[in-house]
Amino acid sequence: MAEPGTGESGGDAAAAGQGTPALGVLVSGRGSNLRAILDAIERRELAARVGIVISSRTGVPALDIAAAHDIPTRVIAPRDYPSRAEEGAAIVAALRGAGVELVVLAGYARIFDPSVVRAYPHHILNIHPSLLPAFAGGMAPKPQADALAAGVKLSGCTVHFVTDEVDAGPIVAQAVVPVLDDDTVERLAERILAAEHRLLPEAIRRVLEGHPRVEGRRVLFDQG
Amino acid sequence: MAEPGTGESGGDAAAAGQGTPALGVLVSGRGSNLRAILDAIERRELAARVGIVISSRTGVPALDIAAAHDIPTRVIAPRDYPSRAEEGAAIVAALRGAGVELVVLAGYARIFDPSVVRAYPHHILNIHPSLLPAFAGGMAPKPQADALAAGVKLSGCTVHFVTDEVDAGPIVAQAVVPVLDDDTVERLAERILAAEHRLLPEAIRRVLEGHPRVEGRRVLFDQG
Repeated sequence: MAEPGTGESGGDAAAAGQGTPALGVLVSGRGSNLRAILDAIERRELAARVGIVISSRTGVPALDIAAAHDIPTRVIAPRDYPSRAEEGAAIVAALRGAGVELVVLAGYARIFDPSVVRAYPHHILNIHPSLLPAFAGGMAPKPQADALAAGVKLSGCTVHFVTDEVDAGPIVAQAVVPVLDDDTVERLAERILAAEHRLLPEAIRRVLEGHPRVEGRRVLFDQG
Repeated sequence: MAEPGTGESGGDAAAAGQGTPALGVLVSGRGSNLRAILDAIERRELAARVGIVISSRTGVPALDIAAAHDIPTRVIAPRDYPSRAEEGAAIVAALRGAGVELVVLAGYARIFDPSVVRAYPHHILNIHPSLLPAFAGGMAPKPQADALAAGVKLSGCTVHFVTDEVDAGPIVAQAVVPVLDDDTVERLAERILAAEHRLLPEAIRRVLEGHPRVEGRRVLFDQG
């Protein structure tokens, strides 16, 4: 796929690394989806490497996971920047400095500046715990609770490209889970999270290998 | 399940018939879901019988299917009634006369009078060709086209209880189908229709045997 973030294949970091495409993973918390990506790479199901982990918060488990894998980390916390634009510029600089080709939001709890989206058009993936367009979130999403309350019998998760519209970018992949009669929000959320851990690495693989193109709101693949 | 339509188990028609619960199936067109119900009954996957087929249109294939199975038919066309209320009263009278316990809308192209819903509270099923709440329809629904245009990777169908809100009644069952890169609206619609033919008889079976109860917007089953 093309690389708007670097202009060159893989950039400096990839040239110095294994030659596989570099991912930039943005996190805010426990990092279970980061771990799922790293597991898929280790199992050789995903031909990529994580070039940098950027967290919006200090002291979160996701940073420990990154450190344990010798992955460079950066904390870019909103309070350290005078404006959202400057926070966004720091994110873009960190991603480009790490030669990142594809950005993955893995439980990243910020909606970032449009300049980040412009720097990586259709090269930022987010995962959302519902079958979008149902139960889109916004700033304080509770899609699992909303799905349970709505009485749906199937829910799931969605990987989509990030655009300026929250939870409305073109959909890359979806996975379904059943909603059971005795579900609590916690139980349903855990089942969806397990599906996310399978879907996200697979969606990254398809985007890296499948030559995605966006037609209208559809993401179509040449292969994969 | 309880029988608000008759007050007595099965009513006159059932007492005169096989003792299995009587369905009232409302149609407007080709009747492929009516055929799926009849096939499931013949395969003994569904312990029910179709007590009456009511069509909002004359001359549709669904009426031929009913006649071929010796099922009583009625055409209750809007133009024959001075008001929606009187049309609804005719529908309720026909259903009750046939001892109908559970009403199934199978491609029925009318939104009927609230009095019909009140006569059969939580005893009317509709099937909708999307994973509700996504792509709810209204009077001129095109959920398959909307799903394709929205770029979802999964769609499907939903069986729900009919309430006064269009496409918003409590959900009984859902089934998923993939949306493929080379889909047309027609191809996706056919794939969803095939899923409807499996889901609708199974949903009827669950409602007849599973003692459904509605809690909030959720339909919960004791068994099945």
